[in-house]
Amino acid sequence: MAMATINCDMGEAFGIYRFGDDEACMPYVTHANIACGFHASDPNVMWNTVRAAKKHGLAIGSHPGLPDREGFGRREMKLTRQEVAALVLYQTGALKAFLDAENMPLSHIKAHGALFGMAQKQRDIAEGIADAALIFDVPVIAYSDCAMSEVFTERGVPFVCEFYADLDYDDEGRQIITKEHHSVGPDAVARKVTDAVTRGVVRSVSGKEVAVVADTICVHSDTPNAVEIARAVHEALAGLPAESDAR
Amino acid sequence: MAMATINCDMGEAFGIYRFGDDEACMPYVTHANIACGFHASDPNVMWNTVRAAKKHGLAIGSHPGLPDREGFGRREMKLTRQEVAALVLYQTGALKAFLDAENMPLSHIKAHGALFGMAQKQRDIAEGIADAALIFDVPVIAYSDCAMSEVFTERGVPFVCEFYADLDYDDEGRQIITKEHHSVGPDAVARKVTDAVTRGVVRSVSGKEVAVVADTICVHSDTPNAVEIARAVHEALAGLPAESDAR
Amino acid sequence: MAMATINCDMGEAFGIYRFGDDEACMPYVTHANIACGFHASDPNVMWNTVRAAKKHGLAIGSHPGLPDREGFGRREMKLTRQEVAALVLYQTGALKAFLDAENMPLSHIKAHGALFGMAQKQRDIAEGIADAALIFDVPVIAYSDCAMSEVFTERGVPFVCEFYADLDYDDEGRQIITKEHHSVGPDAVARKVTDAVTRGVVRSVSGKEVAVVADTICVHSDTPNAVEIARAVHEALAGLPAESDAR
Amino acid sequence: MAMATINCDMGEAFGIYRFGDDEACMPYVTHANIACGFHASDPNVMWNTVRAAKKHGLAIGSHPGLPDREGFGRREMKLTRQEVAALVLYQTGALKAFLDAENMPLSHIKAHGALFGMAQKQRDIAEGIADAALIFDVPVIAYSDCAMSEVFTERGVPFVCEFYADLDYDDEGRQIITKEHHSVGPDAVARKVTDAVTRGVVRSVSGKEVAVVADTICVHSDTPNAVEIARAVHEALAGLPAESDAR
Repeated sequence: MAMATINCDMGEAFGIYRFGDDEACMPYVTHANIACGFHASDPNVMWNTVRAAKKHGLAIGSHPGLPDREGFGRREMKLTRQEVAALVLYQTGALKAFLDAENMPLSHIKAHGALFGMAQKQRDIAEGIADAALIFDVPVIAYSDCAMSEVFTERGVPFVCEFYADLDYDDEGRQIITKEHHSVGPDAVARKVTDAVTRGVVRSVSGKEVAVVADTICVHSDTPNAVEIARAVHEALAGLPAESDAR
Repeated sequence: MAMATINCDMGEAFGIYRFGDDEACMPYVTHANIACGFHASDPNVMWNTVRAAKKHGLAIGSHPGLPDREGFGRREMKLTRQEVAALVLYQTGALKAFLDAENMPLSHIKAHGALFGMAQKQRDIAEGIADAALIFDVPVIAYSDCAMSEVFTERGVPFVCEFYADLDYDDEGRQIITKEHHSVGPDAVARKVTDAVTRGVVRSVSGKEVAVVADTICVHSDTPNAVEIARAVHEALAGLPAESDAR
Repeated sequence: MAMATINCDMGEAFGIYRFGDDEACMPYVTHANIACGFHASDPNVMWNTVRAAKKHGLAIGSHPGLPDREGFGRREMKLTRQEVAALVLYQTGALKAFLDAENMPLSHIKAHGALFGMAQKQRDIAEGIADAALIFDVPVIAYSDCAMSEVFTERGVPFVCEFYADLDYDDEGRQIITKEHHSVGPDAVARKVTDAVTRGVVRSVSGKEVAVVADTICVHSDTPNAVEIARAVHEALAGLPAESDAR
Repeated sequence: MAMATINCDMGEAFGIYRFGDDEACMPYVTHANIACGFHASDPNVMWNTVRAAKKHGLAIGSHPGLPDREGFGRREMKLTRQEVAALVLYQTGALKAFLDAENMPLSHIKAHGALFGMAQKQRDIAEGIADAALIFDVPVIAYSDCAMSEVFTERGVPFVCEFYADLDYDDEGRQIITKEHHSVGPDAVARKVTDAVTRGVVRSVSGKEVAVVADTICVHSDTPNAVEIARAVHEALAGLPAESDAR
């Protein structure tokens, strides 16, 4: 990822249930993280999402979550490193089958929801993700200055750090997780992403400017105005001069 | 498969629940069909079973089933070809992740329980299995003279036909499925398998000699004396002269 | 049910997933059939739906479905009478806990989706539903001239027959099930329901007038214009003279 | 409960999977805690277990667990009070349907595994259990000197405290949870239970005598020699003089 990329969690529908409007977001993002059937999705949804992402020329990664569909993978569970490695392997392998079917490579892995959050705090969880990533030999979308970035650095797992276009930040530079995502104005998003990418800072909810790493910008497809936000991020990044290239 | 092989459904434990004694059967079989988390198994059980099968030098295939753990994949469900293709892809892909982790190739696919039974009768179901098999480019364990063998022949999916060491047969040469499997004497099993492999026949429950195809012998790990049966089949096949080689 | 009632399947959301707009339909219906966690719903959704239905003064029944959330209980499964009785008991008991919490009685039972369809054709399935209904001692919403109505009559299970405001009918007077429900104009719905209730007939897709029983009118909450349809049915029934009372 | 009772977690089989030998333990226990389909069991197993417990004259309570069958309800999950209340209501209501079918009353509620453990430490979880217990108006099997006993006392939820015949204790009088339960000699069990019931003490793993409350003795059906332990506890309690009656 030379320039900051835009990643979006996709394929989170399930059976008869719809979730977000993936295809409307696809023109504005570079990387699709596709849910793998544990916190959301099912085999048909996965295959259809892979096909749509291929049509839009996106890089496709797995988006493995906790085995808790009722909680959408957002309720922490006590898991061992071995359990985490096994569930990331299982889900990513399942996604790879649909990538094989469409002659697409696996681009990356990004843990979902509480699994991502647990890996920020608990080294064991991050180790489990690393175990799986090294087997597939792909980079991971992660977070800066936390257990995840430490473990991935030590283990030699390539990773990029994500910044949230649609979430608020606290004074420690940590995203503030909310149960449901709320609309954010596209102009505010554009400014926020530009600051994060070019100057490596975000203004926290208390008004302080704090350091963040923004290798890739995450847009949540279930934020009510997700498509508008994705477009705003896309345009903000497209308007940056080439020398702002972070890596 | 030059000579008749011996395949066994394995890895059908789940969480805290045990099922059969896979490792005790492994010395006597050549091919392990490993459950993939829909009718039985979970990521940890799959990984452990792959490791055990690798240690015993077995060829490893996927054993995808219906999404019905409560019914152990033995209750028929109305599915479309597309749904079948997607669920075989999903489960086989998940297994491949553990094979990748252990540097093992995927050897074959064998549908489980009611999915296998439905594919014997319904062309659509067999087509769905064929769709997935062609993507993974591996042979399928199937059954002779049925929708499955017809479809696989037409589609160019390589397959071998299995014969059941531990099930009874009717006058049409079809296995008689029972809810639970029962013990069978090892001598009777040895004679039955020898007849099937060398002469292509089995004695039906009504006493008639009927034609069967026995490219590979299936042993069920949940038959009470499964290990004894596996050993009897192994010894019976080992004692056959080389010219009895069926294919 | 003296006059034709209006029943609606409700509480079919699941976790983070929304489904239909139950509360908007509630002013126009008399009976809520609440999903019980197998084909849809979860404990929180059930409790919230019971509370909303209570607020609107609806009679509340259980809406048990097949254990297949991915297929929304719309894929037939091979079940025994014993399995059906147990799953209707389980789900209805679960709903009763939330009724107990809100001091509401259980009004009735109505099987969902493929379970309802199977009970129209297979006596064993209808017997399983009857087994459960007799234990709870409540009436069942059923269908006329089929295995269900036969079995319920024989067993002494009180039942009312439903008519679908938003589905087409064939020449045998059977509803035509579609994977997804489509919008229907409110005027057409009003005429159709009036004919069914007052004259006991419906015009089939081929144009024939066929006999139907319409003790209760079913509105599906996932039909795109469900609220409009519910209102049209409500107004059509309200406008009927008292002597059209069917039972 | 005048005298110390003996309770046992039962009905933890699932589909084709067996678990423990409930019927062999039943002659020696007074209270059955029956699993309700979330951490273990299914509608058929529940109904069969209720029938067996009725035959043996046991009092029957619900044994609700976390929605995590793969982890057998033994992996902590982050839940709200509202979620806990709803899942205890759901599961207990489901069990009550089978009790209704067999004309048996609901005797009590006992949370399973990690839900029980979380309720010892987190007041919110204990409040959720209390919310459900007050609706069913039955006592709860709990633990002494913890969040559960505090909350139940404050809320006026009647409860009895359990002592584990087959687990070790630490110096704070807390049971030491192990992933799998191990055999314990019947003589040691008899002495341990007698001390707990008559003198209110147990010897910890470090050799200290610490205070415990033993209103009811819990025997785990998955301890390898569960039947032997249940018999030993039964005989030890039967041999106590009437004046040792604790409550």
